[in-house]
Order: sequence, then C-alpha cells, then structure tokens
Amino acid sequence: MGSEPETEGCSAEGVILGVDGGTTSTVCVCLPLLPFSDHRQLPDPLPVLGHAAAGSSNHNSVGETAARETLEQVISEALSIAGKNHSAVLAICLGVSGVNHPSDQERVFNWMRNIFPSNVKIYVQNDAVAALASGTMGKLHGCVLIAGTGCIAYGFAEDGREARAAGAGPVLGDWGSGYGIASQALTAVIKAHDGRGPETTLTNCILQSLGLSAPDEIIRWTYADSSWARIAALVPLVVSCAEAGDQVADEILNNSVQELALSVKAVVQRLHLAGEDGNGSFPVVLVGGVLEANKRWDIGKEVTSSILKAYPGAFPIRPKVEPAVGAALFAWNTMMNEAQVNGHR
Amino acid sequence: MGSEPETEGCSAEGVILGVDGGTTSTVCVCLPLLPFSDHRQLPDPLPVLGHAAAGSSNHNSVGETAARETLEQVISEALSIAGKNHSAVLAICLGVSGVNHPSDQERVFNWMRNIFPSNVKIYVQNDAVAALASGTMGKLHGCVLIAGTGCIAYGFAEDGREARAAGAGPVLGDWGSGYGIASQALTAVIKAHDGRGPETTLTNCILQSLGLSAPDEIIRWTYADSSWARIAALVPLVVSCAEAGDQVADEILNNSVQELALSVKAVVQRLHLAGEDGNGSFPVVLVGGVLEANKRWDIGKEVTSSILKAYPGAFPIRPKVEPAVGAALFAWNTMMNEAQVNGHR
Repeated sequence: MGSEPETEGCSAEGVILGVDGGTTSTVCVCLPLLPFSDHRQLPDPLPVLGHAAAGSSNHNSVGETAARETLEQVISEALSIAGKNHSAVLAICLGVSGVNHPSDQERVFNWMRNIFPSNVKIYVQNDAVAALASGTMGKLHGCVLIAGTGCIAYGFAEDGREARAAGAGPVLGDWGSGYGIASQALTAVIKAHDGRGPETTLTNCILQSLGLSAPDEIIRWTYADSSWARIAALVPLVVSCAEAGDQVADEILNNSVQELALSVKAVVQRLHLAGEDGNGSFPVVLVGGVLEANKRWDIGKEVTSSILKAYPGAFPIRPKVEPAVGAALFAWNTMMNEAQVNGHR
Repeated sequence: MGSEPETEGCSAEGVILGVDGGTTSTVCVCLPLLPFSDHRQLPDPLPVLGHAAAGSSNHNSVGETAARETLEQVISEALSIAGKNHSAVLAICLGVSGVNHPSDQERVFNWMRNIFPSNVKIYVQNDAVAALASGTMGKLHGCVLIAGTGCIAYGFAEDGREARAAGAGPVLGDWGSGYGIASQALTAVIKAHDGRGPETTLTNCILQSLGLSAPDEIIRWTYADSSWARIAALVPLVVSCAEAGDQVADEILNNSVQELALSVKAVVQRLHLAGEDGNGSFPVVLVGGVLEANKRWDIGKEVTSSILKAYPGAFPIRPKVEPAVGAALFAWNTMMNEAQVNGHR
C-alpha cells in the first residue's frame, strides 16, 4: 500500500487541515491533497503530514479569546510539523464543540478567514460532524452517536438536511451519557442508604473507589467539584457491578442503552434515513468511551442491537481514524464535490 | 388571649433564641421564657420580642467566616430589637442548612460558646429540624418534608433516633424537589423538540416565560447560570400546564408526588414511627413552596394522600409559625425536659 510516493507527490500541491475541537482537547491534522475522487479508494493508512494537540476550544467553556488562540496555535503547529505554511492550505474543516448556532459558525469562520487567504475553503461544524466523518471517511451521510462524558446523536441526510437529538447536558436529561450513568449509580447508593431503594453492590464498589467510608459522604464528594468528567469516570465501576450480577447496576445500563438508541432513532426518523419502508441502508457511527468499553456487558453492542431491530438496514461503524482526520476528510470530500473533481491535480 | 402580661413578666427573666439558617437567608427570633410546661398550653400568637434577618449561613455556600459572621450579626440584631444583651439568653437553638455531620455541629457550637456564657444551653441542628419543630411546636417527634428548590425528609423517633431521606441535591436524584420538577419539564421540551418525546404545551409555556424563541435556546439558558433556584422558579408553569390537561406535565407532577411520598415513607419505616402495625400516630410536617402551591393540582395534598394510604395514623401539619420560631420552641422544649420543669420560674 506504498503511501509515500503519493505523500510526496501531494504535499507539493497543497494540504488539507482537519480540526477536532473538543471540550477537553483540540487536535489538528494536516493531510496531503488526496489524489482520489472516491473515498473508497483512499490509502490505508492515510498519510498524515502533521499532527498537533492543545487544550479546549469550546468557547462556552474557556471563552472566545482562549478558544481562538487554541485553534490558531494548534493549526500553526500542525502546519509547522508538516513543513508547510498557511498559504499551502487548500481547505480546512473545523468540528468544534459548542458550535450549535449559525452565529457560532460565523464567528469561527471569521477567525479562520483572518489567517487564511480568501481562496482557502473553510468549513465550520459541530464536533459531532467530525466524528461522523471519521466513520464515513468524509461523507456526510448517516447518524453518529457519541457517548462519552456527554452524549449526542447527529445525523445528515444525503440532501444535506441535518438533525440532532440529546446533547443538551445533564440538567436536560442526557441520561445515556457517562455522566448520566454514573449519577444514576450514585443516586442508587444514596437511595439504598436512606431506605428509598434496594441494596446494591454499587455502594461498596463506589465508596471503596472514592476512598469514602459512608454513603453520606458522597453528597460532599459530589458537590466539591462540579466537573462532569469526574462523575463520568465511575462508569467502569457500574459496568463491573452489572457484570457481577447486580440488578440495580444492570437496570441503569439498560436505561442508558434505551436512551442512546432512542436518540439515534429520533434522528433517523426525522431525516427518513431508512427510507419509506424503514429498510433503507445508512451508516451509524459509534464513538466514545461508553460505547467502546468492549466488556462483557457491552453498551455499544446493546445499542446497536436496539437500532438494528428498528432499522435492519443500518450498518454500524466503529471509526478507524480519529475525529480530526474525519474533519480533514470532510473538507476533502466537500471540496471535491464542489469542484466536480477538476483542476486540482 | 392577652399575651402582653406574660411577655412583660417573662422578658425580665431571660430569653430564648431560635435561628433558621438557610441557604438564601438566616432568621433569628427572640422569645421570652415561656411559662408553660406543655406545648399544648402555648399562647397564640406567640410573643416575639425580637426578629432579625440576614443572608446565607450555609458554610458550604458562603464559607465559614461569612457563615459565622452572619449568625453572630443576626443574633445581636434580634437581641438588640428585644432590648436584651447576650447575658439574658437562657438557651439557643440553631437550625442551619449544611449542618450534616457531627463536625459541622461542633463548629457552629464552638462559635456560639465563644459569644455566650457557659450556662447558656446551645443546640445545633440541621435546618430541617427547625422546620419540624415549627409544626410540632418544639417537640422532636415525627417527620418533616421540605420541598422547595431542594427537598428532604427528616424524622425523629420519641427515643431520639433520627433519620433522613433525599436532600442530596439534583445530581443525586432529588426528583421531587422544585428543581427536579422544573428540570424534568425542560427535558420534556427538549425531547419533544428533537423527536424523543411527545409534544407538550410546556414548550410554548416555558419558551414564552423565558423570552426564548426556540427549544434549542433552552440549552444556552440553562447553562448560563447554575443557580438551582432559577430553574425551580419554573414549577408554577408546570402546575398550570398540568391543570390545563397536559399529559407530560401531569406525569412529571405525579412522579414528584411519588418521590416525595417515598422519602417520607422511608424515614417512617426506618424509625418505626407508625409502630408495629403501621397504624400508630405521628405528625408529618409539610413545608416549602412545592407543597404550599394550593392550586387545583395540589402536590402537597397528593403527597399527603399517598402517605395516609400507607400510614393512616399520620397526621399532616402545615406550620403556623416560621422555622426560626420552631427552633426557639425546640430550645425551650429541650431545656424544659432537661431541667424536669424546675428552677426556671
């Protein structure tokens, strides 16, 4: 699969950037212009010329100035590693968390317009889009389900219509997320302790893991730090307890499966991804720690089963490349479509 | 019911202080030493010599220094209004939110020991205790249910054993609280919008009330300010929608009723308040905005029905005095019991 000749050949012609801007970290990759008109012909592995990582670029989380600086920095670094400067860039796609409205897109677009010449194609999307593209190798079609600390389902129809479900945070009922699973487990421990719920092995398991001596102390632990990720980190304990036969933990995971599958089904239905008869074919890209556990109690597998029961034509995909590469492939794919495959080689 | 002669007579002999220290405000009342040995003989209305209010005294919320200063200030002010100084105080009870562990009690006790002579009786409790005492006129027996922004059930057996349920905050599943009701309503709007749930009149009702034009904007609104009270303020809208026949709102309120009643039942069961046969008599004191709505859809009434179905001997009480007075009556009652009604007149 000799990719080096292509890498050298392409890099002389210009590069494509993909950015995955998350709430905890931001990654930028620099790819050569891929000399293929179809994503099924892409080389494996893909030739990555530069790769750089930095902190959060979610403006809701760190503010606009820091988000902008992080994006500019990670882009410069990836280009520098690739031995390129900004003028070599043909297209860039940024999938940034916190980009939910046209005004968010416009703001990030203007930041990029400021550092790139006017001929550079700039695409700004929510980070779920980069995740979808990482499964479909750049094509925006199908539905992605991300379940990590938070969760969201995001889909695109072939005609460009898009829809999302969940992704609203824990106050607004994202119970399928890692945070949702863990907070239900903590609640179950409190309920067992004060007599509102059945006994559960989650109690000893969680207390031991947190170094606490009594369920009462969970209240103080919970409110000492409001980070969602800190709560979500308890998910593997819930999976272990469910695997060991704990009914309460099992029920929490089953709820999570239902919530996650429901999010995908809502998107599929709104976009008619499965066609009139419900048997049409479309990709479902599964991403995030909750779905990748690969344990005996496999949340991702159960979610997939539930989706396939409703839509037998769905084909589940576990991405082989990272979301930033998905963003770059999206930029490449969109640019190729726009240019009708002419003038770039 | 001429209470003035008693007031004058008592005030020469010393006073009792009651403090209700909440997360939003702190109230101190100064009562004369009541010349009765039984709370059933108390004058109505009670003679209040001094009444003062200040901000939060929850150390989790404002820190220890501010909590201590607030308590000292509100006590001095109530005494000053009553024309008394610290040496006139015979007993004080402080019901302070955030007091959950013996170490919390000890800290507040030491603050008080520092400003009062060693012969003054000092009682430090959780603020739920003041609320219970406001319904039982000072006697610690039965169960109090508080449902405002948060919710908690707190009970005492006649032998002094105590138990609580819920009161762990929204992350840990206080779904019966005002915050719990409102966040479920916001979730229902999001779910109706993204296709995961049924249509509901909550959507227009809440969007209009918040001045928002689309359900998407609720996400930003929710995370712009993390105050629980701001979310809980939406409860009257949920009640209105349920009264107008909205099924989704109705279900949310029914869930809340079940959660609140379950909290009380868990406390009653653990303390055996209803005796061996479950028919024993005990007070259930109901406090807080969620239970006092007094609307056609009456959450407090439904909670009471559910409790009475399980424990026909429970007698519901809506307190006629404020929690700070409950705290003062608790101090009075406990002091009288300790002194076996001798030496104070």
